Amino acid sequence: MRLSQFHLRTEKETPADAEIVSHKLMLKAGMIRKLAAGLYTWSPLGLRVLRKVEGVVREEMNRAGAIEMAMPSVQPKELWEETGRWAKFGPQLLKIRDRKEQEYCFTPTAEEAVTDFFRQEIASYKQLPVNFYQITTKFRDEIRPRFGVMRAREFVMKDAYSFHIDDDSLHAEYRNMYDAYSRIFTRLGLKFRAVAADTGAIGGSASHEFQVLAESGEDATVFSDGSDYAANVELAEAVSPGPRPAASESLRDVETPVQKTCEDVAALLDIPLQRTVKSVAMIGVDADGNDQFVLALVRGDHVVNEIKLAKLPGMGDYRLATEAEIAEALGSEPGFLGPLNAKKAIRVIADRSVAAMADFVVGANRPGFHIAGVNWGRDLPEPETADIRNVVAGDPSPDGKGILQIARGIEVGHVFALGRKYSEAMKCTVLDAAGKAVNPAMGCYGIGVSRIVAAAIEQNHDDAGIRWPEAMAPWQVAVCVINPKNDPAVAAAAEALYSELNAAGIDTALDDRGLRPGAMFADIELIGIPHRVVVSGRGLEAGTYEYRARTAAESENLDKAALLAKLAG
Amino acid sequence: MRLSQFHLRTEKETPADAEIVSHKLMLKAGMIRKLAAGLYTWSPLGLRVLRKVEGVVREEMNRAGAIEMAMPSVQPKELWEETGRWAKFGPQLLKIRDRKEQEYCFTPTAEEAVTDFFRQEIASYKQLPVNFYQITTKFRDEIRPRFGVMRAREFVMKDAYSFHIDDDSLHAEYRNMYDAYSRIFTRLGLKFRAVAADTGAIGGSASHEFQVLAESGEDATVFSDGSDYAANVELAEAVSPGPRPAASESLRDVETPVQKTCEDVAALLDIPLQRTVKSVAMIGVDADGNDQFVLALVRGDHVVNEIKLAKLPGMGDYRLATEAEIAEALGSEPGFLGPLNAKKAIRVIADRSVAAMADFVVGANRPGFHIAGVNWGRDLPEPETADIRNVVAGDPSPDGKGILQIARGIEVGHVFALGRKYSEAMKCTVLDAAGKAVNPAMGCYGIGVSRIVAAAIEQNHDDAGIRWPEAMAPWQVAVCVINPKNDPAVAAAAEALYSELNAAGIDTALDDRGLRPGAMFADIELIGIPHRVVVSGRGLEAGTYEYRARTAAESENLDKAALLAKLAG
Repeated sequence: MRLSQFHLRTEKETPADAEIVSHKLMLKAGMIRKLAAGLYTWSPLGLRVLRKVEGVVREEMNRAGAIEMAMPSVQPKELWEETGRWAKFGPQLLKIRDRKEQEYCFTPTAEEAVTDFFRQEIASYKQLPVNFYQITTKFRDEIRPRFGVMRAREFVMKDAYSFHIDDDSLHAEYRNMYDAYSRIFTRLGLKFRAVAADTGAIGGSASHEFQVLAESGEDATVFSDGSDYAANVELAEAVSPGPRPAASESLRDVETPVQKTCEDVAALLDIPLQRTVKSVAMIGVDADGNDQFVLALVRGDHVVNEIKLAKLPGMGDYRLATEAEIAEALGSEPGFLGPLNAKKAIRVIADRSVAAMADFVVGANRPGFHIAGVNWGRDLPEPETADIRNVVAGDPSPDGKGILQIARGIEVGHVFALGRKYSEAMKCTVLDAAGKAVNPAMGCYGIGVSRIVAAAIEQNHDDAGIRWPEAMAPWQVAVCVINPKNDPAVAAAAEALYSELNAAGIDTALDDRGLRPGAMFADIELIGIPHRVVVSGRGLEAGTYEYRARTAAESENLDKAALLAKLAG
Repeated sequence: MRLSQFHLRTEKETPADAEIVSHKLMLKAGMIRKLAAGLYTWSPLGLRVLRKVEGVVREEMNRAGAIEMAMPSVQPKELWEETGRWAKFGPQLLKIRDRKEQEYCFTPTAEEAVTDFFRQEIASYKQLPVNFYQITTKFRDEIRPRFGVMRAREFVMKDAYSFHIDDDSLHAEYRNMYDAYSRIFTRLGLKFRAVAADTGAIGGSASHEFQVLAESGEDATVFSDGSDYAANVELAEAVSPGPRPAASESLRDVETPVQKTCEDVAALLDIPLQRTVKSVAMIGVDADGNDQFVLALVRGDHVVNEIKLAKLPGMGDYRLATEAEIAEALGSEPGFLGPLNAKKAIRVIADRSVAAMADFVVGANRPGFHIAGVNWGRDLPEPETADIRNVVAGDPSPDGKGILQIARGIEVGHVFALGRKYSEAMKCTVLDAAGKAVNPAMGCYGIGVSRIVAAAIEQNHDDAGIRWPEAMAPWQVAVCVINPKNDPAVAAAAEALYSELNAAGIDTALDDRGLRPGAMFADIELIGIPHRVVVSGRGLEAGTYEYRARTAAESENLDKAALLAKLAG
């Protein structure tokens, strides 16, 4: 591409309303333009990058045996009612009414549409397994769209859906997709982790998120420094610490007139926060189905994990207790709660770390007081123990290898073994080998194609602008011409090099716009071209080209053979 | 692609609810599936064809210097209000309300969005001309979606928009796009015509429709059998016939008690229909801006052309006259109207053909009577004369070369010199060479990408199914294997040929599904693969492959060299 024939428009100023670096740089480089909240036009430059990402995703999906097709953007309400998602999806589902007052939505995902396609197309186990995918525009009516294309309302998603006669086949394809995703993100040059994720409300048996690591990421992920273990914070197991020390202190009340948090109590008593215990009051149900007052205990430096808690018996639909319920059960007000001296029978659930503590501090259930020197077995019965907290950096890895670290990540992919939730709801069946109609098992596999563009920038930038990974750069090489109008020999040499590189399959831009070198180099750095070659009169005299990698501090003068060898590598 | 790894699902029965052959064959070949009225899922087979069309369109647009970008599907009401099209577009515009009760539409076309992009991106004539295009999903809420993807509500369109400092530049780009479109439809192997079209309500200075010729086409187009002249019926000029013959009959009343149409009158009088004149009563405005009664006269075998009529002075907003207005002006009732004996001053506009008639028959403005032997100059003043009728087959071509024919066509492309309608309405300006802010001239250029798929089938099919033009076939060649499971040598030979052809850049499918030959051949014919090669045990023994072009009546046995030569050609 000759840049004189292209439309490039960079900005000198950093846009004031962009909060994260990828949004700023995409605006500054002129990759996107806002049309309305969460709606972006992709400029020619932006679209080139988006298409490169699409291309890699498509190649690897095809290589993995998935088959591309395309479903409509606008989908009828009736279909979404078959699974109950018309109501359940909530306000993120953009609903549409047509001229005949029929209701539709703009597809945010296509489980219903693909299951409808499948049930019309495929009748026998002999046609299974099959994995259909599409790369199309989706819409989620985010209440607060932000960060440019990172959390836009309209976006490009690759969504794939596989169908299987049994769970073994589903799990084989799940692994196949997991591997394909790893290849995709590796080819795209991204630092990522596949993170075990909770299967949540959808059910299903397995789920991994693919997270691009970046400090601006909205998701916290946990990984081991001694193994491949990675999970999101909701899911990561907090293992039991070593055995409980022996009790060495006696029970005593301590005055804490205004100290309502563990941090304040620890500061007042001059003890480590790890010696305090936080009591969280909630309401579950008992074996008879009645409300039950529950006190969940975690160490002062830990946080209760709601997802883990909700998996315990009687806690499926738990809620926080009201102040009236707390007063009735404990005779106290929040800030001074604890497991001792309750006014009625309560359920106490201690996190594994708490169960392993001795001589700890809890609230006294008396305003202005805590109790120190508390010990299990002596002052309290041995507690019900479970993993009910978020892991923190420094915890041992649950696989026994290494120490957990926490990193922030941007979710760019998700694989999910769905099971039969959709095929059952939509009465989708195939005949098995015995001639019996059975619901196929399903998997779904998403990649946020447009989000990848932003995520890659979060991970690859410097003060001068974007540093694209090779595979998603708008062009791999920029040939910059110094003073082409006044120096025909330079213009001709640049043109020749440009043609030669493109002919060799190296996607090359010729910067023949005739800008001053400073402005030209600033543009090429800002838009992140991995390799820059400068053709100048001085270079031609010396028989060299000035080469600089986007990631290098210095340029070097190379003759043509050395330059071509460098670019071909 | 190995078909055993693909998803192919053909139907034996012809779908009952499909009206035209392309819709029938697309369903039968399993290219599309209906999701709801006017909404279709593209199966893997259908998508392959759609992508081939997209590929040709993209290549030629790029070659022509247009620059690809992408605008959102969902666009805000405010933008469409700037041009008044939020209201004017009518119910085909699918309106959407988001969770915040903001209004949007699903884009049917993008003049507003691209002009908004332009006015933010481009400030100077130095950056002009520029032509932006996108290939994206559009939506028109058709009241009666039908014919499958031919008139679907959701469809894929290539839309391009050019911007110019002056009209000369606009017209050069218009010609450039006209040529690019001609290359696109030629490469796609379609029989088409570029047809001069009316610029209609949008205004603008030039417009051509690209019509694929097909009997099922919704548009009537006119072309000369002696030149390149082509136009749609609304626009084609009806030239003046030869000089008027001398009067030979005298004026006489004829009784036509129940004969209200020219056909009935001609039959009663036993004269050719070409001797009768039809009088259409309407209301225009006179020079003072008052209502004016107008009688438009066309020959009995002709039809009034409303678009031509509306271009005459005072007729811009004409309407048909009411019966009361007719009675007041002519003292008659419809069926017996004519230019003689009016009760007040009226405007008479005679079509060129009528002005050249002698001894003709008109209504008498008296119920039950017509007048025969009417002659201009003698019985009536010489009339105001204009071209106000549709051309008919057999008319002379307006370029003086050949005779007009009428053919039906399917509109697949449209180029339009818009002028400054949008740039003025949206206050979009650039600085010209003198530093003055001026509205750029614009052109817009559309191609119905998904419609092309259906149009190609209308033009290329036989009883066995589709006959794809080479450039848009899902695969160019199908290698059919006879009995692969029981004959490993055959399977290996087919596999080798398949690999060899793909390596040579010939997009080849290997039909390794193990079907019986009859069913396999029927599928390959139905889905329209241009070239079929059969690999069988008998052929291997003889050292030959059975080759048949989709359009050929017979197959031939070729050795490998001859086969490769045939397929490479």
